[in-house]
Amino acid sequence: MRQNTIGIDLGGTNIRVALVEDHGMILKELNEKTEVEKGPEFVINKMVRMINEINQGENVKSVGIGAPGPLDLKKGLILDPPHLPGWTEIPLVRILEKETGLNVFLDNDANAAALAESLLGAGRDYESVYYITISTGVGAGFVINGKIFQGAQGYAGEIGNMIVNNAGQSYLGLNRGALEGITSGSSITREGMVRLGVKGGTEEVFLLAKNGDIVANEIIDEVIKHMAIAIANIIHTINPAVFILGGGVMKSEQQILEPLREKVKEFVYPGLKEIIRIHPAQLGTRAGIVGASLIPRQYE
Amino acid sequence: MRQNTIGIDLGGTNIRVALVEDHGMILKELNEKTEVEKGPEFVINKMVRMINEINQGENVKSVGIGAPGPLDLKKGLILDPPHLPGWTEIPLVRILEKETGLNVFLDNDANAAALAESLLGAGRDYESVYYITISTGVGAGFVINGKIFQGAQGYAGEIGNMIVNNAGQSYLGLNRGALEGITSGSSITREGMVRLGVKGGTEEVFLLAKNGDIVANEIIDEVIKHMAIAIANIIHTINPAVFILGGGVMKSEQQILEPLREKVKEFVYPGLKEIIRIHPAQLGTRAGIVGASLIPRQYE
Repeated sequence: MRQNTIGIDLGGTNIRVALVEDHGMILKELNEKTEVEKGPEFVINKMVRMINEINQGENVKSVGIGAPGPLDLKKGLILDPPHLPGWTEIPLVRILEKETGLNVFLDNDANAAALAESLLGAGRDYESVYYITISTGVGAGFVINGKIFQGAQGYAGEIGNMIVNNAGQSYLGLNRGALEGITSGSSITREGMVRLGVKGGTEEVFLLAKNGDIVANEIIDEVIKHMAIAIANIIHTINPAVFILGGGVMKSEQQILEPLREKVKEFVYPGLKEIIRIHPAQLGTRAGIVGASLIPRQYE
Repeated sequence: MRQNTIGIDLGGTNIRVALVEDHGMILKELNEKTEVEKGPEFVINKMVRMINEINQGENVKSVGIGAPGPLDLKKGLILDPPHLPGWTEIPLVRILEKETGLNVFLDNDANAAALAESLLGAGRDYESVYYITISTGVGAGFVINGKIFQGAQGYAGEIGNMIVNNAGQSYLGLNRGALEGITSGSSITREGMVRLGVKGGTEEVFLLAKNGDIVANEIIDEVIKHMAIAIANIIHTINPAVFILGGGVMKSEQQILEPLREKVKEFVYPGLKEIIRIHPAQLGTRAGIVGASLIPRQYE
């Protein structure tokens, strides 16, 4: 049996710190506002305090952190994430190791969730798992035989920037026709405002679509079509054994999953049509923090 | 020191069989016409004869075969390749093992070349290598830490079917706007005939472009742009340490490589622009057969 570890989900809005046992059960958890506007030093001090509080009476040796990218994984730096404004090349791993005396390991939040789903969730029966999170943004993580494949510079899974529509526009500094600019929650929200005049975000667009609104259905169809192109492109690049889809937008799973599976079939070789696997995530909002707690194992 | 092995490059036009030593040196080689029109039994008998001839006075234990896909790698079957008409679910591995008494291993021809370049060629200093061959068709192989990543159903590297132009047409049963339908040698030849009225194939199109022909340059620019989109998409999917480009079309390397590198920079995150690596293959036409001889090592 392995030791319990601490998992940290560092987000732009909340910090969650949990003590997690071997099989992913959360034994205790703290959840506080990040207060990112108060700067990195303030936030890191808060993280140290939360770690120490969780570790009270325990004997934890390792901490895993899932953080928004871009990161320098080799040096343990937070580089300059849009979701942590003011954080520029912050040596988070080094500072936390010094302040807590624990071994600290960092990876990006999508990789952490991918790891949780691969080892303990919907991907646990598969050798290779491509996990995609469709949330405010679009991220991904690739896990082979239980290990995150980070890529040479840590950019594996940055599919938000994959070009899926050459005629598309550019949003948020991404490529013209990039996946995230079409299929993310913020993109669906934007299209809802522009084309439907609604301000209720993705949920309202999905609700309108369900009730038969033609324009809302066009928006959803475009999301599904371009996500299908991305998945087909990934299949023809690396042919993972399974795709796991998570993230907030997947709350509307019933309107996404089956049409997406059908659409992917249109774009793959005949030999693959009946064997591609696209499954919903199983761990829900636990994936991030449980996945973070699994990061130290990657380095055993 | 490892034993010498036999490598076989099974193509629609030629069969090459060679005795290859540990470091990729070809010690002897036979090259015969495939005569694919005479059917699988005839061709397989020829392969047996060539293997026995090469193995005369040697003590080889293993044979690796690089063959055109699609293949069933687990069962050692040739499924139904366009380049081997009449071959349908042929159990090549089982037959050759029975007839020669040797251990026989099969993989597709692009994976074999990828393996050679990764272990002995332009990719030998890198942990992960994405090898792309631009020839009559477009194929690829992904090698991680010296091992071919075949994908769950053996479709890793089938990037010829990647969608890189949504407004594109469909050729050869591939997706509309598929990479191979734009960037392969046969596509360049087709565009040369349609738009320039020339029948000299890729070499003539590249020569005209070099001499300043505007339409020829448009054709090459489209090839480069869409190959750059494919490479950027692969970077954002798995971020391999290096891309190695081989195949017949790369004879025109001087007109492709630098413009391609510049174009890829336009499509990747700022942090990657200066560190992406795209190198030409080093082993030339030896890659296929040397790579085939390396396949048995994958199973040691």
